[in-house]
Amino acid sequence: MLDVIAHGKAGPARRKLVDPEFLAPYRPPTIFGIGLNYYDTVREMGWDVPERPYLFPKLSSSVCGPSDSIVVDENVTTRADWEGELAVIIGKRTRGVAPEDAMGSVFGYTAANDVSARDVQADDGQWVRGKGLDTFCPLGPVVVTADEIEDPRNVSIRTWLNGSVVQDGSTADMIFDVASLISYCSTWFTLEPGDVILTGTPSGCGDFRDPRIALIPGDVVEVEVAGIGRLRNPVTAPASATSRSVP
Amino acid sequence: MLDVIAHGKAGPARRKLVDPEFLAPYRPPTIFGIGLNYYDTVREMGWDVPERPYLFPKLSSSVCGPSDSIVVDENVTTRADWEGELAVIIGKRTRGVAPEDAMGSVFGYTAANDVSARDVQADDGQWVRGKGLDTFCPLGPVVVTADEIEDPRNVSIRTWLNGSVVQDGSTADMIFDVASLISYCSTWFTLEPGDVILTGTPSGCGDFRDPRIALIPGDVVEVEVAGIGRLRNPVTAPASATSRSVP
Repeated sequence: MLDVIAHGKAGPARRKLVDPEFLAPYRPPTIFGIGLNYYDTVREMGWDVPERPYLFPKLSSSVCGPSDSIVVDENVTTRADWEGELAVIIGKRTRGVAPEDAMGSVFGYTAANDVSARDVQADDGQWVRGKGLDTFCPLGPVVVTADEIEDPRNVSIRTWLNGSVVQDGSTADMIFDVASLISYCSTWFTLEPGDVILTGTPSGCGDFRDPRIALIPGDVVEVEVAGIGRLRNPVTAPASATSRSVP
Repeated sequence: MLDVIAHGKAGPARRKLVDPEFLAPYRPPTIFGIGLNYYDTVREMGWDVPERPYLFPKLSSSVCGPSDSIVVDENVTTRADWEGELAVIIGKRTRGVAPEDAMGSVFGYTAANDVSARDVQADDGQWVRGKGLDTFCPLGPVVVTADEIEDPRNVSIRTWLNGSVVQDGSTADMIFDVASLISYCSTWFTLEPGDVILTGTPSGCGDFRDPRIALIPGDVVEVEVAGIGRLRNPVTAPASATSRSVP
């Protein structure tokens, strides 16, 4: 998949799939996370609208597939949370691109759940552990190319917990749009083909509710991004974490 | 190089090098940084000794070679700082390893300069940008295999700024030793062959001095780790950043 993104090599021929098992699309070289990027989320949290994108890293070792278990060890976190997101996949080496030219760097999109251990984030200060635990980044179920999303500023994102809608937002509410995020990241870092930007999550996370809701073993969390598809991940305790499809 | 690390494939045959140019050894999949890991550094900064390793991510896109320019844009940072460090290279997939077994996961070591924009770190809270700017992670000049460092708890690290010693420490002063750091990281994340842990820096950084010293264009900063070799990186302004050897 990285070869397809970086070099335009053709993937497997067009074929009919019968009951396929979808794995994570690939392991991105670098995953950038963006916090506080929806007006309704910022309002919900009572924060100020950020002046620039709130950037954090998501470890690529945390990637799992669209049907894999999200492993929540309750000895580690009792505040695991969902974040349904549009994920942007960079298609070419990019440095210092202006927002108006940034969409030319998009290879495509996929859906993401930026699973987050809120207590660990708060304890550590740095978010790498709370955001980066193994299996905390379901991606998929497919990668769509840039032309398949007509307007990345008008994409519906919904999340379900055990069948009930918990997030129902649109990228129209983003503070910094896809082009601005690519431009911002490329101001500081050389983006490479296959790098991913998680563009932030709309309101409706579990940790900001009263009472709080946390992901616990036995839950099923689903994230659907319109035009891409749906992640459906069961939450399990560590003992039953027997299979992962990290590429 | 990643193939050598992951699969034990032989590298190029033994050969005599005449005036070689050393590039960055390779681009690691993931680079973990450890802050506040030397007793003398913690004392110097007036912080408490941390109860667990202070973990942050270092973008692999920030890697440059042992002779490459460190590009400091004074519009971005006026407090760029050096951090001479021993870098540990993971040799095999590792999850949940105990400290007493952790050294079996070491492929080898290299030297690192964990260059840090202190003002950007402070402004952002998350350290990804201040630590992850392009060229802010010189690595090299060579990778030595695990057997070539007799005792990783007794390795001398020295840093020079424009020919004057500014850091002169030893890994003997580490709060969490190499084995403990590998064990800690592997508790949360699946470590992969080629992943790097930057193990922290001894005292003597520029930003904690009175008056402060910052890296500015025209400077030359050198980091030597005993048994590995020396990085020698000129500091340049962006305009002259014409060549990088990022793999």
